[in-house]
Amino acid sequence: MKFSKKLEQMEHSPIRKFYKYAAEAERKGKKIFYLNIGQPDIKTPKVYFDAIKHFNEEVLAYMPSQGIPELIEAMRKYYEQHKIYYDSEDIIITQGGSEALTFTMLCITNDGDEIIVPEPFYTNYNIFIKGTGAKIVPLTTKAEDGFHFAKREDIESKITKRTRAILLTNPGNPTGTVLSKNEMRMIADIAKEHDLFIISDEVYREFVYDGSPMTSFGQLPDVKDRVILIDSISKRFSACGARIGAVITRNKELQNHLMKLCQGRLASPTLDQVGAVALYNLPSDYFDDVIKEYQKRRDVVYDYLSKIEGVVCQKPSGAFYLTAKLPVNDAEEFLIFMLTAFEDHGETVMFAPVEGFYETEGLGRDEIRIAYVLNTKDLTRAMELLKFGLEKYLTLTTV
Amino acid sequence: MKFSKKLEQMEHSPIRKFYKYAAEAERKGKKIFYLNIGQPDIKTPKVYFDAIKHFNEEVLAYMPSQGIPELIEAMRKYYEQHKIYYDSEDIIITQGGSEALTFTMLCITNDGDEIIVPEPFYTNYNIFIKGTGAKIVPLTTKAEDGFHFAKREDIESKITKRTRAILLTNPGNPTGTVLSKNEMRMIADIAKEHDLFIISDEVYREFVYDGSPMTSFGQLPDVKDRVILIDSISKRFSACGARIGAVITRNKELQNHLMKLCQGRLASPTLDQVGAVALYNLPSDYFDDVIKEYQKRRDVVYDYLSKIEGVVCQKPSGAFYLTAKLPVNDAEEFLIFMLTAFEDHGETVMFAPVEGFYETEGLGRDEIRIAYVLNTKDLTRAMELLKFGLEKYLTLTTV
Repeated sequence: MKFSKKLEQMEHSPIRKFYKYAAEAERKGKKIFYLNIGQPDIKTPKVYFDAIKHFNEEVLAYMPSQGIPELIEAMRKYYEQHKIYYDSEDIIITQGGSEALTFTMLCITNDGDEIIVPEPFYTNYNIFIKGTGAKIVPLTTKAEDGFHFAKREDIESKITKRTRAILLTNPGNPTGTVLSKNEMRMIADIAKEHDLFIISDEVYREFVYDGSPMTSFGQLPDVKDRVILIDSISKRFSACGARIGAVITRNKELQNHLMKLCQGRLASPTLDQVGAVALYNLPSDYFDDVIKEYQKRRDVVYDYLSKIEGVVCQKPSGAFYLTAKLPVNDAEEFLIFMLTAFEDHGETVMFAPVEGFYETEGLGRDEIRIAYVLNTKDLTRAMELLKFGLEKYLTLTTV
Repeated sequence: MKFSKKLEQMEHSPIRKFYKYAAEAERKGKKIFYLNIGQPDIKTPKVYFDAIKHFNEEVLAYMPSQGIPELIEAMRKYYEQHKIYYDSEDIIITQGGSEALTFTMLCITNDGDEIIVPEPFYTNYNIFIKGTGAKIVPLTTKAEDGFHFAKREDIESKITKRTRAILLTNPGNPTGTVLSKNEMRMIADIAKEHDLFIISDEVYREFVYDGSPMTSFGQLPDVKDRVILIDSISKRFSACGARIGAVITRNKELQNHLMKLCQGRLASPTLDQVGAVALYNLPSDYFDDVIKEYQKRRDVVYDYLSKIEGVVCQKPSGAFYLTAKLPVNDAEEFLIFMLTAFEDHGETVMFAPVEGFYETEGLGRDEIRIAYVLNTKDLTRAMELLKFGLEKYLTLTTV
């Protein structure tokens, strides 16, 4: 039997390929501090579970393909509170941010069309973009520059006749980089000039630190037809298992195409939508403590890492990730060492090698992503383990 | 901005386009018996809601991309009870049968590849197949033949170098037609001879009437590498809002490609999976009453319809649909008449015109699909309304 060339050329998610080593280490009784995936430890607000417990229909029926009106309205109000103004027909509920991105790609690209993506980028963009037939054109960024990418000449040099959109994560994953208002303005200008969509994946929107204001591409009125916001409740409310996301656009033609795909898959999960309504109706000060907690964690990780000799990183301004350059040749090899050959009092740490987050061959081999999704005590210990492990690894490899 | 040609050429789901007329009729106080979509009225078993109420993790986390092991095991046992033997690695949980079909298409087709589909077919196959870049090659069936399609020469005449699979719904939607063992054997032989996949959408597997045995393409050992079962809990347990389906295959290469897409979208909904475990663990006699009820309903609909002059239909053997040919030129026009111009004591009936279920232009214009998803009393009244409406419509149009 024959298979799709797209899928044959596609690799498995690089975040997940080290699990066999972790499983083996656990089997041997090693304790692992997991900093490799963006699964927060923050409790899912109880209102979510309560709302679902109070669901009392006898038939669990299909909901409207666009999403239940209560959730759309709750999201509309949430955006309004953040000075992001949308109408209810602009908000389409999806099965996670993943479906939002897949549907967007199916709607705006033909086979071989190009999407400009700053690298390193969230690795699953590979699946959404290449799996539906388009190409990723990477815009390389560097640890030394804090992974900023908004230089007009760099972006413009990547634009061809096949370019359909710039896809960015803001705040960034795996970098934690937050765009300034000036950078956003410039990207919007480029999009207008070259007739491109801006796909702004803002699933970490709330997580901006040091009192920086939260900004969104949804706030720029002159590109309202070009901006496609990708959203999700997974990180915002620590509800990853709910699979509720959204694609938000004022572009009527895009809405029309998106709705065809939504009607095809009938509906998003009913109970998760009911729970999500309760989450969006939480008072907005819910985020205050969460943001404080993540900022503390970021500080723990950054302060520790920046004192380790040979490590290069800038203090990230948002999300809950930090990408750092280590004084190693191959972070994947170093990770396997940490899982198989290293321990300190029976403990070790797992992180994500960043090579798989780059499109350009050979880049990021010495970089790792740390997801600060544990409490500060555990994070401190995890950083200590990283330091000890690195020292030991360097002794062994420089012999 | 530019859009995907695939999406530009795609139409909206034809089942849904008559809602505006229905909404307007309801606004005017008309009562509508809805027989147009496959949303059963059967109560979702209470165990589903109970299992979810007892979920007591504090963080609603991502589950494994393949699905939670408890659900995979519960499904494996369910298949085993039906003499369909799979290993747990063969079962991949998806976000509804829709995702199962979309992922299958992404894995096995390149742009322009062909899928043979007996018509009339479930209209959303258009979205899954054309939305991902492949083509539908229809195999036309007729009301007069009970919509049977398994004739070797007909199927073989559709096979080209680009054919990748035969996709069929068994029991059928919108036809209710069930394949005989001989027909399945012959389709399996063709698939072997021409190196094709058989994608067998068996979401109505239980709903087979008159004591006929339930059969599955998963029971044919010599095509085990070519069979892709599509499954879902939506109809089986009247849990449409749960968005839990599965793609089941023994083909290792296909499993590998499917898992890339599954890892890309991270996971299926956690709570719905927890509820689904409880559903699959129901005693198998749960289905006895449900099947009896649907058989009674089928008989009510069929007996009534077959007595209306000019209506052509065969008694369907499965699913909960019946497709009938009416003595009208345009069933869409007749439906609009039923919603806008007809009523009997303030009541009318809604059904699905079948034209949109055909790929071949112009076919099915005089056919309607009835989903017998109401109790027998309501169904009897609905059939009466159909008869009255048809009589009135024919008087008006033959003047």
